[in-house]
Amino acid sequence: MAFRLSTLNDRAILIKGDGVYDLERHSGGRFSSDPMQAIARHGELHAVAAALGDTADAPLASVELGICVPRPQKVFAIGLNYRDHAGESGMELPQNPLVFTKFPSCLTGPGADVVVWGPTTDWEAELVVVIGKRGRDIAAADAWQAVAGLTCGQDISERMTQFAAKPPHFDLGKSYDTFGPIGPAIVSLDQFANPGDLAISCDVNDTRRQEARTSELIFDVPTLIAYISAICTLEPGDLIFTGTPSGIGATTSTFLKPGDTITTVIEGIGALHNRCIDKTDWHD
Amino acid sequence: MAFRLSTLNDRAILIKGDGVYDLERHSGGRFSSDPMQAIARHGELHAVAAALGDTADAPLASVELGICVPRPQKVFAIGLNYRDHAGESGMELPQNPLVFTKFPSCLTGPGADVVVWGPTTDWEAELVVVIGKRGRDIAAADAWQAVAGLTCGQDISERMTQFAAKPPHFDLGKSYDTFGPIGPAIVSLDQFANPGDLAISCDVNDTRRQEARTSELIFDVPTLIAYISAICTLEPGDLIFTGTPSGIGATTSTFLKPGDTITTVIEGIGALHNRCIDKTDWHD
Repeated sequence: MAFRLSTLNDRAILIKGDGVYDLERHSGGRFSSDPMQAIARHGELHAVAAALGDTADAPLASVELGICVPRPQKVFAIGLNYRDHAGESGMELPQNPLVFTKFPSCLTGPGADVVVWGPTTDWEAELVVVIGKRGRDIAAADAWQAVAGLTCGQDISERMTQFAAKPPHFDLGKSYDTFGPIGPAIVSLDQFANPGDLAISCDVNDTRRQEARTSELIFDVPTLIAYISAICTLEPGDLIFTGTPSGIGATTSTFLKPGDTITTVIEGIGALHNRCIDKTDWHD
Repeated sequence: MAFRLSTLNDRAILIKGDGVYDLERHSGGRFSSDPMQAIARHGELHAVAAALGDTADAPLASVELGICVPRPQKVFAIGLNYRDHAGESGMELPQNPLVFTKFPSCLTGPGADVVVWGPTTDWEAELVVVIGKRGRDIAAADAWQAVAGLTCGQDISERMTQFAAKPPHFDLGKSYDTFGPIGPAIVSLDQFANPGDLAISCDVNDTRRQEARTSELIFDVPTLIAYISAICTLEPGDLIFTGTPSGIGATTSTFLKPGDTITTVIEGIGALHNRCIDKTDWHD
């Protein structure tokens, strides 16, 4: 039985149909309220999800979900991982995965506001991998077994910050507070016919800006896990933002402004709905 | 009263004189065993340290200290932050702090082995700042008040990994497992006549390789905190590796090899003693 794991008021919840279920309560205390514990023990979630009754704690439509992975040890992000996007960026195709970080303080929820911190704040729809198992030197052939599930992400980027330093570096420009919406839930792999081939799209207001399939990734999910885990021991809850397809704002000098809405959809996972606000309207 | 905070067997301890004291026990349960809680409440540690008796739980010399900040949310690291080091690297002086990350899985203890993961593994002695308070937009004038204390760090770097990607990026080459020794303890600021001017050195085997004062930093600690906190909300336990002075191995193509010992000393803090080993001798 599949699971969809997220958080509500800092507590782990499961989503089933149109309802949300508190994980600690509905597991009879086998799980705590800590979503990071649930990720580390994700194999046991299938049985809990299968045993859920029909009486949810709340309708999904009535709640604002939190961050499905609130305290990752590591957030990896990949640059230039779709051919068309590398082209629009005027960059050479990388010979190895271009790995940087989004500092975890930038993570926010699937319906949270995104602050327009600068004049060149841009969108990047991305598939996000949630690691489920500790390990290093994971072979690509075994890599999907190290995954707890998949979720949607936005790798929001302030281009001037990203490229102002010499040499250019990626981390800070992609790590402003609120620049990492993820969610709505971690979706277990058994819910995808092929977890390596999912439709992904990004709309800003009513305009389709990005549209691709994750099968177009230059370095696919198993390759990324093998590459990174040859260097760093992976931990449950580590995230990999896998890169964005073409259609970013920088290509046409169209950037986000307060009032814009960003809709990020991945087939079989769901959607992020983020509204852009001015920094003066933001209260942490 | 000053404090020195570290860990032993995953529990927070205080160091006083030649002895170590379990924090939970010696605080009468006011603190848990969690060192991250102790960092967030570091202001209360002064009184606990002052009240410690003369009977330590163990002599300092008899124990192997753990990682003094085992679970930071964020690890910032600064490149090219001493003029002579920028010169030896053949790089332009940065106009803004060059901020990258060491992924936290690389952190290890003050006496731990460092694995020589590649043929160009190099040393970098660094002052490490431990953030003590949540905040953003921290003014430089207020920045020291956001600091829990200082510790020593080694920003061990595999140069080929660091520079192989196009464009060059820093994160993975500095994040191999064991590439981040820190410690021996977080030393509270009241133990320094001037926390912005400390002698720092690195010896490899019996050869002095690096020697400088932290007053030579291009971007000093308050400037770094102000710069970073204008982008990311800082959290207690966040680390800033402040950059390394000249004398790295790459300048003379002298790299670390199994059997080497690295000794990193900062005035008023103490020393890291790390032995280099081959990866076949490493057991996590």
